[in-house]
Amino acid sequence: MTLTSPSRRVTTPVTPANPSHGALRPLGLSEVQITGGFWSRMQSVNADGTLPHIAHWLEREGWLGNFDLAATGSLTPENRRGREFSDSEVYKYLEAVSWQLGEHRDDKLEKHFRSVVSRVAAAQEPDGYVNTRFGRPGQQARWSDLAWGHELYCAGHLFQAAVARIRTKPDADDGLAQVATRLADLICEVFGVDGIQSVCGHAEVETGLVELGRATGSDKYIEQARIFIERRGTGVLPDIEFGRAYYQDDIPVRDADVLRGHAVRANYLASGAVDVAIETADGVLLDSLTRQWQNTVARRTYITGGQGSHHQDEAFGEDFELPPDRAYSETCASVASIQFSWRLLLAHGDSKYADLIERTLYNVVATSPAADGRSFYYANTLHCRVPGEPADPDAVSPRAEASLRAPWFTVTCCPPNVARTLASLDAYVATASAEGIQIHQYAPAKIATTLDDGESIELSIETDYPTTGAVTIRPLRDASKPWTLQLRVPAWANGSSLTVNGGVVPAEPGYVTHRRQFRAGDEIVLDLPIEPRLSEPDRRIDAVRGAVAVERGPVVYALESVDLPDGWGDVSNIVIDTSVAPQDQGERVVVQLARSIAGEKPWPYNTSDPSHETHSSLVPLIAYHDWAERGPSTMRIWLPTL
Amino acid sequence: MTLTSPSRRVTTPVTPANPSHGALRPLGLSEVQITGGFWSRMQSVNADGTLPHIAHWLEREGWLGNFDLAATGSLTPENRRGREFSDSEVYKYLEAVSWQLGEHRDDKLEKHFRSVVSRVAAAQEPDGYVNTRFGRPGQQARWSDLAWGHELYCAGHLFQAAVARIRTKPDADDGLAQVATRLADLICEVFGVDGIQSVCGHAEVETGLVELGRATGSDKYIEQARIFIERRGTGVLPDIEFGRAYYQDDIPVRDADVLRGHAVRANYLASGAVDVAIETADGVLLDSLTRQWQNTVARRTYITGGQGSHHQDEAFGEDFELPPDRAYSETCASVASIQFSWRLLLAHGDSKYADLIERTLYNVVATSPAADGRSFYYANTLHCRVPGEPADPDAVSPRAEASLRAPWFTVTCCPPNVARTLASLDAYVATASAEGIQIHQYAPAKIATTLDDGESIELSIETDYPTTGAVTIRPLRDASKPWTLQLRVPAWANGSSLTVNGGVVPAEPGYVTHRRQFRAGDEIVLDLPIEPRLSEPDRRIDAVRGAVAVERGPVVYALESVDLPDGWGDVSNIVIDTSVAPQDQGERVVVQLARSIAGEKPWPYNTSDPSHETHSSLVPLIAYHDWAERGPSTMRIWLPTL
Repeated sequence: MTLTSPSRRVTTPVTPANPSHGALRPLGLSEVQITGGFWSRMQSVNADGTLPHIAHWLEREGWLGNFDLAATGSLTPENRRGREFSDSEVYKYLEAVSWQLGEHRDDKLEKHFRSVVSRVAAAQEPDGYVNTRFGRPGQQARWSDLAWGHELYCAGHLFQAAVARIRTKPDADDGLAQVATRLADLICEVFGVDGIQSVCGHAEVETGLVELGRATGSDKYIEQARIFIERRGTGVLPDIEFGRAYYQDDIPVRDADVLRGHAVRANYLASGAVDVAIETADGVLLDSLTRQWQNTVARRTYITGGQGSHHQDEAFGEDFELPPDRAYSETCASVASIQFSWRLLLAHGDSKYADLIERTLYNVVATSPAADGRSFYYANTLHCRVPGEPADPDAVSPRAEASLRAPWFTVTCCPPNVARTLASLDAYVATASAEGIQIHQYAPAKIATTLDDGESIELSIETDYPTTGAVTIRPLRDASKPWTLQLRVPAWANGSSLTVNGGVVPAEPGYVTHRRQFRAGDEIVLDLPIEPRLSEPDRRIDAVRGAVAVERGPVVYALESVDLPDGWGDVSNIVIDTSVAPQDQGERVVVQLARSIAGEKPWPYNTSDPSHETHSSLVPLIAYHDWAERGPSTMRIWLPTL
Repeated sequence: MTLTSPSRRVTTPVTPANPSHGALRPLGLSEVQITGGFWSRMQSVNADGTLPHIAHWLEREGWLGNFDLAATGSLTPENRRGREFSDSEVYKYLEAVSWQLGEHRDDKLEKHFRSVVSRVAAAQEPDGYVNTRFGRPGQQARWSDLAWGHELYCAGHLFQAAVARIRTKPDADDGLAQVATRLADLICEVFGVDGIQSVCGHAEVETGLVELGRATGSDKYIEQARIFIERRGTGVLPDIEFGRAYYQDDIPVRDADVLRGHAVRANYLASGAVDVAIETADGVLLDSLTRQWQNTVARRTYITGGQGSHHQDEAFGEDFELPPDRAYSETCASVASIQFSWRLLLAHGDSKYADLIERTLYNVVATSPAADGRSFYYANTLHCRVPGEPADPDAVSPRAEASLRAPWFTVTCCPPNVARTLASLDAYVATASAEGIQIHQYAPAKIATTLDDGESIELSIETDYPTTGAVTIRPLRDASKPWTLQLRVPAWANGSSLTVNGGVVPAEPGYVTHRRQFRAGDEIVLDLPIEPRLSEPDRRIDAVRGAVAVERGPVVYALESVDLPDGWGDVSNIVIDTSVAPQDQGERVVVQLARSIAGEKPWPYNTSDPSHETHSSLVPLIAYHDWAERGPSTMRIWLPTL
């Protein structure tokens, strides 16, 4: 695409991503508040369960203590705790808390936030460098292990935390912004055009730098991000066992056709590259990223929205290589994918990006944390063959693929990533354009903003979506002139309709648009058909050939063994009778399953069919994000057909 | 089972495994010689291509040089080359050369063998310790990293090399046997009942110790193997990210139900455990291993005989988790699996073990090396989605999963493992019992042995199996009394027949038995139906549901993209019309395929079928072991059905 002339913002939204121009303008936390429903409950659990949980573990594992040791000059390779990227978890926590405090005053949390910032600031060195893993006597030298050291990655998370604070509390005198800009200045000096000709093995600093540039007005940070984006893909990092594709150093960003390699790295990189494309009006780069998104979604994404088929390198597989039982689908990859999609949504205004965000939120982000917000999935399998063992709630799990959620991991990127996403989720609900307002995600909410032409808009969203499919929008003030309301109709929602003050019109997938001089008392109702549906996979996805998935609205359903009739055992011998339509029973969907009993065979590749008998029964499925809350079980999303 | 009374051997066969009793007695290289056909060609390539290739790379990479540095006291962590287990590749090479020299006199090779032995011997320390990675100033202390250090693993390979030499050249004065027994004595001292209460993270020393005990008559080595077998599974190794199952330290060997964890480790351990069970008359342990074999073959083995579904930890997956595109199927796991099966075959005399050996030989061992024996697959995928890049013939490949064969790997266990297997392959052809001779593998061969009762037997095998299914056995001398000839009828060979001097009888899968006082001039012909057949997977193998494989005799066939009609592209859009019987065309099998053209879709999980058109055509398949010899291509074994 050719980028059209930028429309400069008249407000500075309180949001993680604030591009200077694009098709849509984000509405931030001061303009949109989720007031109830599914996501409000998730946010409450995040505030009351997850944030204190993370604070506890950061302290307990010594990852905060590393900063204290650094501040007193007593940090050594021997007494430093945690992996090389442990600083980043502290920063993601600070980002999550910033968003939380931006919406809800909490003096105790504010005090904790400031104390953590002080401890980080105390560890910063005179030239601005801050990282507990490198550069001190006995430690590896600064920037000596760009491939695996995660120094710039940590910096990127620090920048995002600072941006969250700058936007939510612009007048705070806590010092976080200064810590970030001093480090950013150093990075620009060290890695500039004439500096170290390399990049970080884990992309992240790019998007952090752009946003810090946007938040502070320092164009040099954006220029440094551009330099990093252009450098990557030219073989500046060492070749490794997984190949340079692992950290996207195989092909220049603008020349790639699809995301590949480590799925978190790939999505963070793509997010930062969109940021750079927008700020530098680089339409060729944006076109490339748009194409990469399309190909990745069409060929390398699970039905849950999850990404990453390989455990070995936490990476994308080849096209259509999407095994449900070996799905890695790392929680962080989904968080990063949402960031990528969101940036393209703002750039292009196409509903498909919001579709994927919704799918990913309901089926990965909501799946990772337990109901109490104190244990998490790191990987999100679509087929669990063996009941998991409960994780020790008081121990660090060495295994990312623990089959029941675990409270903390040796590599624990996912819990604080979920926390910062949920704490800022209000910012993903709606946007504005020159003509009006777009609503992308449906939750009970209040929206109040001012359009570029000065028109003030206030409205409410009332819904119990996705339990039912009705979404009611009520303007709360009389408009002075016409404006346009656009409501997303998901791609699956064929047969939707829009009712405006009693008049019904069909609503096709995409955005249904209504323009008028709205008045308080108007009622706009979008009806989305959320009845259960059977979804068939593309036949090129070999791993799920001959199987269907059940979806209901944006939610993917799953069969969990605890719901099977007595004596049926686990989910491996089940087939679905698709001639019986799935029945909607509110939280559950009931399907007709048959138990297929294969005889014990000494060799599983016989020329004749196994003898088997079938018993059939109505069996409930549950929302995938609710699975594994009832003790050890087996589970599958894809159900083989009779 | 209860072990029946041992029947002590009257001969010492020249063979890798020589149990003191069991249902069958192995016939070694001095009793069986393969004289032509498929395996003879593989053996020639092994001798002329692979062995010099390995010698070259061992020298070039400095893995032999490590011993020289050790001998002069100048080995340091800085100048030592290769991974922690590089010594073992030298030992596997010595084993392979021992078998080779046992069959074919070759003065140049003998000289090289002796020079390598001298270099190893020079590195041995006064107390018998030999390992280039541990124990010197600056190196880690001996036995300080049992989980990952591979010290005992290397020792096990040294013992197997020494056994090969002892059996093939009992009078050789090269010193290899002394190097091995001195190290074995040290290990017994250090790891005995009152010694270090642990085991090696990679099983291998157990089977090496038993065989060294058998070859030298030292029962203490067998006792030490027994101690190692009993210790493992009690949590003596650290818990790791992959879990203790990775190195089979999760469950005591005798309590396990199935192989699990790292597939090479699991099979070496099982082999050593059978050895211990036999030598200690431990029927309970043997029963357990027999059960583990059955469950592993029924649920965790690819149609090629390959084992290991996980790249991440080179490990078995759960039951029926057998993705063809992510098959790891490590070459070494198959070599180890053959060792396990062979030991159970000798113990029980059941043809199913020889069936799996044959399948694994033709479809994994024969697949790994290129036609010239100078490049290798480490992992043996069953579905290649993207054409591989040719490996640099002059470079070490960092990646085990290189999609075209590579000359050498950073971890290069597989090439010498193939070499030692092929060099000793004659020993897997036939066995003897008190009643007569069993032929398990079909190749042109000569057999000459003496039964326990003193009856001398000589016979020839004439066949071009598996090109055709006729196997002719000719006794070469008149017997003095009746004896029993047993010929294996593979499980797939329904409709076989046996013709003895013109009289035909049906031959059921298992062993077809003929007892008579054989005379020179008798002709026994086994006819196996090798026409192509379609094999369907157990429906619990989700990854290949709705697909069939084509097999012909023991050989699994594959579709390679270079054989597709012009314009069909790669193998991803292909379906097979199973209503058309596969046609046998000698080396190739022709099937009716249709090209399924799925429309480009933005999201691969639609509720409606993709529109697609089909063109159908007769397309040849090739033997899987022949794939990837014609440049970059895609390939699949499992063909989706129309």
